[in-house]
Amino acid sequence: MVGPFGGLTAAQALHAVLKHPQLLGEPVSLTVNFAAAVADGVFYAEAQPVRTNRSTQHWQVALKQVDAAGVESVVTTATAITATRRPTYRASDVALPAVPAPADVAPSPTEGRPTWLQRYDVRSVAGDMPTNWDGSESDTLTQLWVRDEPPRPLDYCSLTAFADVFYPRVWRRRATLTPAGTVSLTVYYHAGAQELASTGSGHLLGQARGQRFFDGYFDQSAQLWNEAGVLLATTHQIVYFKQ
Amino acid sequence: MVGPFGGLTAAQALHAVLKHPQLLGEPVSLTVNFAAAVADGVFYAEAQPVRTNRSTQHWQVALKQVDAAGVESVVTTATAITATRRPTYRASDVALPAVPAPADVAPSPTEGRPTWLQRYDVRSVAGDMPTNWDGSESDTLTQLWVRDEPPRPLDYCSLTAFADVFYPRVWRRRATLTPAGTVSLTVYYHAGAQELASTGSGHLLGQARGQRFFDGYFDQSAQLWNEAGVLLATTHQIVYFKQ
Repeated sequence: MVGPFGGLTAAQALHAVLKHPQLLGEPVSLTVNFAAAVADGVFYAEAQPVRTNRSTQHWQVALKQVDAAGVESVVTTATAITATRRPTYRASDVALPAVPAPADVAPSPTEGRPTWLQRYDVRSVAGDMPTNWDGSESDTLTQLWVRDEPPRPLDYCSLTAFADVFYPRVWRRRATLTPAGTVSLTVYYHAGAQELASTGSGHLLGQARGQRFFDGYFDQSAQLWNEAGVLLATTHQIVYFKQ
Repeated sequence: MVGPFGGLTAAQALHAVLKHPQLLGEPVSLTVNFAAAVADGVFYAEAQPVRTNRSTQHWQVALKQVDAAGVESVVTTATAITATRRPTYRASDVALPAVPAPADVAPSPTEGRPTWLQRYDVRSVAGDMPTNWDGSESDTLTQLWVRDEPPRPLDYCSLTAFADVFYPRVWRRRATLTPAGTVSLTVYYHAGAQELASTGSGHLLGQARGQRFFDGYFDQSAQLWNEAGVLLATTHQIVYFKQ
């Protein structure tokens, strides 16, 4: 893939907001634009509240790095909206798919896989990465259970990182390996402190689909439910692919 | 609704990018955060290319207004990614739904509706706004044909505005009128100059669904196809609702 695990970068952008002394409320949405591959080294996160209303707050974030020649550049930009929430009508229009429980699905082997993937327990339910790269076409659906490895309680940052756990949809669609990398990722949060706490260190069911592949970019839409069937986040991204 | 038509604001944010002398390529993604209602008056659009790579460019945009007391404030922030595209593999995983042609669907009356809606020719196919506000629950699907009124050829700005043409999903879900307003809108573009030109001034089929309604916010995911069945844009938003 082009660049490091985007989920980690997205989580770090959100973290810069959540640690800011002027923070109002909890995350409602986050959009992260991956402007350049984050190099393995020091980065600086700048979060700025550009407008604070009565119950909502709008953020701009930049992650910056200084290269060997001493030149600073922006490697990631992000915007976020946080809000103080209060209980309202609640409903879901998409139910947890009928899938076997995580205990009944074998963890995917992580040997030889990227290091970040070894920090996850992934249990593939449907649409696993092709094993025959024979160019045969298929739908783009992937369903998997995932949690942190070792297990740790869910928080907004780990939820954000889970949003980017899926391998590129174009690989599934075409059974063809082509360089690919997310250029923009959006997460909508549908969870408060209670939903995070009740999820704890349990698995999330992630479901992802692509919609359109066109001239170097494709989109992906995904959902993340906890084991109790609560839809905690919906997330979308647009992804570069080479050919 | 809370504030003016967000589609127009989003189109203006994109327009600031597209008119910038340093623009590279065509739109790939746009995220607009509605920080405050844009007042009926002068606004300033500032677009800044924060990183330009070989084939991609990352933008930050702010729309600002000065109030009666002379105080300037940010009313909208946006980020965009533009790119020079080249032909690659093309495919869709979501087909144009089986719906009657626009010529076979009556235009919705616009008398007494908001002015911006009178600038559209909307032909409802499924999931029109409830007529009985009786609190009965339903799914959140809406399908409609839409074009500019009077007709004009599609461009990236009008495509952007179409992304926000749907009435709030919570009204459909609950058959209950509650104040609602988009807080963040993302558009992924799957069209080049050729797709825009071949669409011309024809209708687009818009399809929208909500996924989760939770403590003041719900999400909406939508698609926009042209009459020939080409998926031109996919779009997502998160929307405030009062109760």
